[in-house]
Amino acid sequence: MIDSTMQVAYLVRAAGADIDARAEALLLEQTVELPRSALRESPAAERMVGRVAAVREVSAGIHRVTLSQPLAATARDPAQLLNVLFGNASLQPDVVLADVELPEAAFDWLPGPRAGVPGLRALTGVTGRPLLATALKPMGLGAGQLAELCRIFASAGIDLVKDDHGLADHPFCPFEARVEACLRATEGSRTVYVPNLIGTPERVVRQLAFARDAGARAVMLSPMVVGLPLLHQLAAMTDGLPVLAHPSLAGVLPAQATVLFGKLFRWYGADAVIFPHTGGRFSFGTETCRALAETLRAPHPRVRPSFPVPAGGIKLERVEEILAFYGRDGILLVGASLYEAGDELYERTRALVARVAQAASAERV
Amino acid sequence: MIDSTMQVAYLVRAAGADIDARAEALLLEQTVELPRSALRESPAAERMVGRVAAVREVSAGIHRVTLSQPLAATARDPAQLLNVLFGNASLQPDVVLADVELPEAAFDWLPGPRAGVPGLRALTGVTGRPLLATALKPMGLGAGQLAELCRIFASAGIDLVKDDHGLADHPFCPFEARVEACLRATEGSRTVYVPNLIGTPERVVRQLAFARDAGARAVMLSPMVVGLPLLHQLAAMTDGLPVLAHPSLAGVLPAQATVLFGKLFRWYGADAVIFPHTGGRFSFGTETCRALAETLRAPHPRVRPSFPVPAGGIKLERVEEILAFYGRDGILLVGASLYEAGDELYERTRALVARVAQAASAERV
Repeated sequence: MIDSTMQVAYLVRAAGADIDARAEALLLEQTVELPRSALRESPAAERMVGRVAAVREVSAGIHRVTLSQPLAATARDPAQLLNVLFGNASLQPDVVLADVELPEAAFDWLPGPRAGVPGLRALTGVTGRPLLATALKPMGLGAGQLAELCRIFASAGIDLVKDDHGLADHPFCPFEARVEACLRATEGSRTVYVPNLIGTPERVVRQLAFARDAGARAVMLSPMVVGLPLLHQLAAMTDGLPVLAHPSLAGVLPAQATVLFGKLFRWYGADAVIFPHTGGRFSFGTETCRALAETLRAPHPRVRPSFPVPAGGIKLERVEEILAFYGRDGILLVGASLYEAGDELYERTRALVARVAQAASAERV
Repeated sequence: MIDSTMQVAYLVRAAGADIDARAEALLLEQTVELPRSALRESPAAERMVGRVAAVREVSAGIHRVTLSQPLAATARDPAQLLNVLFGNASLQPDVVLADVELPEAAFDWLPGPRAGVPGLRALTGVTGRPLLATALKPMGLGAGQLAELCRIFASAGIDLVKDDHGLADHPFCPFEARVEACLRATEGSRTVYVPNLIGTPERVVRQLAFARDAGARAVMLSPMVVGLPLLHQLAAMTDGLPVLAHPSLAGVLPAQATVLFGKLFRWYGADAVIFPHTGGRFSFGTETCRALAETLRAPHPRVRPSFPVPAGGIKLERVEEILAFYGRDGILLVGASLYEAGDELYERTRALVARVAQAASAERV
């Protein structure tokens, strides 16, 4: 039976006297949505409920509640898994998803990234050092202007140049024109241009096909904006492309960052996961960043490791520190700090490329 | 220019001395993602930023920051609108979306519900009183068992019988078998059976087609589970069906309930929006419920009104009170309180149907 059971841990804020009732309510809420008294005559439904496996107070008034639930509740469906993990509990302000362990059978239908760390290394031709990425921005520029930036980054030796997540199919910068112009701008270089897909699912699927046919070798997606199940759909396509996942709209889901970005994004198919490194414009702590990166890269019998992509206002003076923090299997994403160079964009980018190479050759990462 | 500008209001937690800088940072974060100094040579990007229209302290340390942004930033795309509204700000714990006003031009591509209040009234044949809905549950039952429940509810006179949001395409209760069995169970009655669609976008689109071809006249969707842009895609289909939106996974988005459920869900195409009524298992307050219902039904030059669907553990003794609270244009959703009747399910449902009719004829709603 162990292979058909999932372990789901929540942090629940409750008084000690209430926590057992709260845990039981959580158990019922996530699957059958009925009081236990109404399940009397339905053993099949009662089995669906699972059981409370552990309750432990981790700090004053905060309990870690671990539920043991049948994997069958998920219907082998990535959207239904979200229902079971979050579902109605997301309406309750006192519950946060802390962790989830799935049995190996789940990875029959959650295959994870198509490329992962080894695949993206093969794609970019980079071994023995972290990868370096930047973003095309700002929104408002036309396709030709963004392609010119892309050309500068490519000639300076950046590994991955991705669209900003806010670059959509704007009339002043149409998706197709941008993709074609930016791919042309990387010709003759090693640089991989990564277009941002965004829209309704049918539009995203069309964008992916266009990008692939135009020669793109990876794409970016904001899974929480377009829907995590769409990430799974794209990752499962036989003729899809590796996906960089962007955290737009994901930050305040009722889940700890480690499980959301480190497990769910990876399991749903992200080859690399962008997240805000501590000390930038956002609020992740050092330990969260470390745990997140380790979780993304943790060995797994069925799922490839994904690249952590620290980002979010990284200052150039912190580059060596951040490279050392994440080690070789990371992608450093630096955007605004390069753009601030203005006319010196090429020179500043070139210097950053050299610093990454140097940090790696000095075995500081 | 007024018709090309959107007004977006956030509640931002910050010290009074910091709020102007915080508002400026928010403005830059949601569109160009660059410091203003890096925009100097790009007037097109600078226009994309918009401006801070107002800052007002609404309570100690909480400021309402209203941004005036060009509608063009949204690229006429429902996913990109989410990026502009939430995007990176969702990674910051001190920002909550409080309201959004879109110019009329936005409703060229955000048409809202296909049926809305008048369409669902026509579908169910109910005039002059609130509608009454219930849910098929629990997860674990087979298609035949759920259809038998559906038959009981239909014979007792319920207007809408929806699947529980956790009913997916489980092997023990396949979607297609369930839809066919439940539709058969409502034959000869006025009751509208509403199947739950869930899965990756391609699966949901297939489920919708199957349900429609089998004779279903409305469907349910959890927009935050499958992705809000998919709701828009389904609502925009010429051969789609009216959609009940379920709040699974939506509760803790960084948005006040009124704007999330009352505006975004309606604008993206929900004909009826389920939400937790105050005092049930979840945590919405009375004023939130009132504002949410009023927002869903507010007259709009381009968008049909949507039905508010209060739910979430409604006790039978509160029925008249809740009917009076929401008035005629509401759908009362009662689930567990009926199931607790066990063998008396028909009788208890019949009594509830009678009470709704009586409350309406006594003009108490």
